[in-house]
Amino acid sequence: MRFKFPLMAIGLEVAMIILFGLFVQYETDQNILQPPSSSNSTDVDRFIHLYPLFQDVHVMIFVGFGFLMTFLKKYGFSSVGINLLIAALGLQWGTLVQGILHSHGQKIHIGIKNMINADFSTATVLISFGAVLGKISPLQMLIMTIIEIAVFAGNEHLVAEIFMATDIGASMTIHAFGAYFGLAVAGVLYRPGLRRGHVNEESVYHSDLFAMIGTLFLWIFWPSFNSAIAEAGNKQYRAMVNTYFSLAACVLTAYAFSSLVEHRGKLDMVHIQNATLAGGVAVGTCADMEIHPYVSMIIGSVAGMVSVLGFKFLTPVFATKLRIHDTCGVHNLHGLPGVVGGLAGIVAVTLGASDMSTPAMQAAALGSSIVTAIAGGLIAGLILKLPIWGQPSEENCYDDSVFWEVPRWREHDHHFHEHNGHHHLEPEL
Amino acid sequence: MRFKFPLMAIGLEVAMIILFGLFVQYETDQNILQPPSSSNSTDVDRFIHLYPLFQDVHVMIFVGFGFLMTFLKKYGFSSVGINLLIAALGLQWGTLVQGILHSHGQKIHIGIKNMINADFSTATVLISFGAVLGKISPLQMLIMTIIEIAVFAGNEHLVAEIFMATDIGASMTIHAFGAYFGLAVAGVLYRPGLRRGHVNEESVYHSDLFAMIGTLFLWIFWPSFNSAIAEAGNKQYRAMVNTYFSLAACVLTAYAFSSLVEHRGKLDMVHIQNATLAGGVAVGTCADMEIHPYVSMIIGSVAGMVSVLGFKFLTPVFATKLRIHDTCGVHNLHGLPGVVGGLAGIVAVTLGASDMSTPAMQAAALGSSIVTAIAGGLIAGLILKLPIWGQPSEENCYDDSVFWEVPRWREHDHHFHEHNGHHHLEPEL
Amino acid sequence: MRFKFPLMAIGLEVAMIILFGLFVQYETDQNILQPPSSSNSTDVDRFIHLYPLFQDVHVMIFVGFGFLMTFLKKYGFSSVGINLLIAALGLQWGTLVQGILHSHGQKIHIGIKNMINADFSTATVLISFGAVLGKISPLQMLIMTIIEIAVFAGNEHLVAEIFMATDIGASMTIHAFGAYFGLAVAGVLYRPGLRRGHVNEESVYHSDLFAMIGTLFLWIFWPSFNSAIAEAGNKQYRAMVNTYFSLAACVLTAYAFSSLVEHRGKLDMVHIQNATLAGGVAVGTCADMEIHPYVSMIIGSVAGMVSVLGFKFLTPVFATKLRIHDTCGVHNLHGLPGVVGGLAGIVAVTLGASDMSTPAMQAAALGSSIVTAIAGGLIAGLILKLPIWGQPSEENCYDDSVFWEVPRWREHDHHFHEHNGHHHLEPEL
Repeated sequence: MRFKFPLMAIGLEVAMIILFGLFVQYETDQNILQPPSSSNSTDVDRFIHLYPLFQDVHVMIFVGFGFLMTFLKKYGFSSVGINLLIAALGLQWGTLVQGILHSHGQKIHIGIKNMINADFSTATVLISFGAVLGKISPLQMLIMTIIEIAVFAGNEHLVAEIFMATDIGASMTIHAFGAYFGLAVAGVLYRPGLRRGHVNEESVYHSDLFAMIGTLFLWIFWPSFNSAIAEAGNKQYRAMVNTYFSLAACVLTAYAFSSLVEHRGKLDMVHIQNATLAGGVAVGTCADMEIHPYVSMIIGSVAGMVSVLGFKFLTPVFATKLRIHDTCGVHNLHGLPGVVGGLAGIVAVTLGASDMSTPAMQAAALGSSIVTAIAGGLIAGLILKLPIWGQPSEENCYDDSVFWEVPRWREHDHHFHEHNGHHHLEPEL
Repeated sequence: MRFKFPLMAIGLEVAMIILFGLFVQYETDQNILQPPSSSNSTDVDRFIHLYPLFQDVHVMIFVGFGFLMTFLKKYGFSSVGINLLIAALGLQWGTLVQGILHSHGQKIHIGIKNMINADFSTATVLISFGAVLGKISPLQMLIMTIIEIAVFAGNEHLVAEIFMATDIGASMTIHAFGAYFGLAVAGVLYRPGLRRGHVNEESVYHSDLFAMIGTLFLWIFWPSFNSAIAEAGNKQYRAMVNTYFSLAACVLTAYAFSSLVEHRGKLDMVHIQNATLAGGVAVGTCADMEIHPYVSMIIGSVAGMVSVLGFKFLTPVFATKLRIHDTCGVHNLHGLPGVVGGLAGIVAVTLGASDMSTPAMQAAALGSSIVTAIAGGLIAGLILKLPIWGQPSEENCYDDSVFWEVPRWREHDHHFHEHNGHHHLEPEL
Repeated sequence: MRFKFPLMAIGLEVAMIILFGLFVQYETDQNILQPPSSSNSTDVDRFIHLYPLFQDVHVMIFVGFGFLMTFLKKYGFSSVGINLLIAALGLQWGTLVQGILHSHGQKIHIGIKNMINADFSTATVLISFGAVLGKISPLQMLIMTIIEIAVFAGNEHLVAEIFMATDIGASMTIHAFGAYFGLAVAGVLYRPGLRRGHVNEESVYHSDLFAMIGTLFLWIFWPSFNSAIAEAGNKQYRAMVNTYFSLAACVLTAYAFSSLVEHRGKLDMVHIQNATLAGGVAVGTCADMEIHPYVSMIIGSVAGMVSVLGFKFLTPVFATKLRIHDTCGVHNLHGLPGVVGGLAGIVAVTLGASDMSTPAMQAAALGSSIVTAIAGGLIAGLILKLPIWGQPSEENCYDDSVFWEVPRWREHDHHFHEHNGHHHLEPEL
């Protein structure tokens, strides 16, 4: 057990290096190979124009997703640390599988869109990670990353190239897909002992503030996420504007419904951290369409409301009746709003907001994303259930000290992991 | 009381959606409607060139202002959470009122400058929020947002269109305005019981570190704030350079004077968090003028010094003699440096650094910004003083648990809000 | 003693203002002085194209380096605060000394590259700061900033203009230089009493999470660091792509080797915070060369491994045998990977990946950077050892309360600095 994780990580990196050596090249477009003084070409412009959007997405992946999951009181190292690990692996693997599907047997030429798409492919895994957060080992996450990105790339190819559906902000192919894949994995790995909650499955005051760092960077840069690979000009512009206003509207309804459903009208940090982002998810599919800003705001408002109601009423039902425990509530942030986004896309296409797709193809894309995700997640779950991956025991869930050297909690405390009432059966990685 | 906040939030969002449906459209400029391959037009370039500056400002509004106010030990949720709420409302409302004032009866066409200006208009409210932080309810802040942005847009129209004054970084129209509006509200809402301070009105070690996240992102992106809507080319370039050097100089004097005025020469985190930013405020009015870099540095140095002295000597006088309690010291970060900026602008215009304005018009702009702010703030304060908005009682000030479900403080504590020595009279939102 | 720090800070700022008045001007290139409507010139484009890269670097300097060093439990104010102070001074001083070396007696015209290079020059000092973190006063750091940037600019001029070596991401001139300069200073200032560690020289749970904010922003924006001053077009594109993949590969080996070398296979936060960044350092010298993406990944993998092994085996030897105590382990993050980068550059140039330099010139650059750094660091160390700069006593090391007014540690604690078992001999600044 002691060497499985490091040897798997090294083995995967060696494999990536070999595959990159075989299949990946620099962009060879002459427009990029020449300095701009000799040719003020649009391709060079395109690279330097898209690089800031790429960096916005990059912040979302590594700071946004990473810190959003630090809300658990004793699982911050793992949240932000495993997030970094699997995103770093995922972007290499995503470059390869997406590239191979698009390159038709030729070498993969790395342009800025490949880098953006590589980051996108990791988002899918990070969403699923939220569903199993605290209940899974780093080694299991490496395996899940490899499986999920392969399935994701297959579904994304199907949606974009076969169905010719439009999903510019990836409500369906990333958000709904990532959520339902993660829920399927969580369902397979379900352990009844965690049904009634776990002593570690809660936040403390400052862990909730760390999580807000993630929330805010996701919220701020979501217009870049939804527009980064949109067609230059009008469509890209609309994707930014629609996402900007959808998110703003979503905040108001998320706050309102959080207060409405909670005890004595108080706000719940879980809702604020997550449901305020649902507007970015839900406007994704039709972000670049001519839907009018006020329609974006309606979509965002509905998403904020649906997300809070999901946290309040659906998540407990999932955990107790469906035997699916969703640590971060990804179903409420990515699943439901992703479906709302897919449905909004069908309506928008029906009403003529886009001439790139048909309602039937949009519906096929939504169905394919959900079905593929659940099927892929079930298979991944069965593989991860094999008792060889160092999954933490029930009592060790949501606890960094299983996988990390953990310092004192604060100045005068004894060491963090000596503080627990029970003795740890610390599995090695 | 239980439903006032959520119903107000929903009602405002519904109103925004209706108003957007009536008045707001996409940009219809043919230059944006065509893809860049058919026309490498400057307007398309302009959009994609300004988008990174917009995102810098966006980070300042939501992360910068939000985390800057998390310094209070028990008010971090409200600081960063209400900041998000009122900025999300404010950017929608700001889009409308600024747009209507500029569109002369036509539809508002959303371009990148509208989005930047919408974010700017929220900055005004967030500055005023700092003056009343901890003493006001979320519902009160929704009302204040609506009132303040309307008054701000009126004054901004007066300054830019009637006086034809120049204030590219908004030292007067945002910073001085926001500070004096907030002080006026704080004066009306003054409660003598808080005069000698409050047990919750202090920081703890990690809350001061969270606040530094806000400080640093504000500091870093301030050159974008001051240049985002400047004329392309030389003026925009100068606004970036002048702000960069003004801020650097300001840091040195802020540290020096913090050490000079404090007990035994130690540094005070309140000064470092705030006064290091005063250089960005004070150089705002003349940021795009040809004032020479060393003059920017003089302006920044003076601002850093004035800001620290304000914290040390003015804030206590305001609280005790003027009966104005300024929680974050916005007078020292935005008020005084904003006035310094306005005065610097008068001098610079007098010396011929700009041919766009006259000293008299600059003076009129400064006076108008202060007078309008105080008048607007007094009216807003009177409205907010009505006993129907759920204002927290004195003993519940600076305490998240009045409006939020608050988790334990740390691992082994009892719940945060059970820890207080006194019983809470928790008003509902 | 009481006034030395503030008077030095004010004196330095006054000197900067005078020197800027004498030597620094705006860019006077006609291409920038005209609005883009009259001339869609490449120079205007270049300014607005590079500004987002500049801002990425700016975030790395102030948030990245600043928070990376907040891992110590009682030294977060100083880490992030002194980082801000010396970077603000350093960017002014760096503008001057780099400008004077390049301007051949003419005025320095501030373009976007000057601002990027000014930020770069501060990086050198911030790296060295990591080696002496906790053992030095703010006043000492002001002195060190002035000395180190002057030496840095001299060596950088030698490498770029005399040797004509290539080092686009500054593996040698910033990272190796900063590390060895800092180690030399740390060696001169060595105090045997700190040999066996210090009660304050450790992290707590949340300080490690704060440090991850720094790690992630450094990791995310490193492609901008390595490409910001690269030749537009192909070279700049390659610098981004190579750094992106080198960093991703580095994460996998850093995690693997952290688990391999640690007790029972657990991950160590020190390694994750630092070694995951070594890939960005090591790929720096040849980032813009045509080395193929898979070679970048090999370089990154080696750097991640070398960095972890350095933390585990070299740092203890340095502290005990060489009498050099390296607080942040900058030798493992910047020193060793910088040397790896320099060596990789020699190999790459030998194999023809660049026609801009020769292997001999690359070797001279590496040697010059290390030798100059050590010599400069020894001299700086001797100056800083003079007993007039308020260096903290051994028992006061790694403790904010020596230089800062420190609030309570948390809600119900006594004050932080009253908590120590021993009486403080608090030196004034």
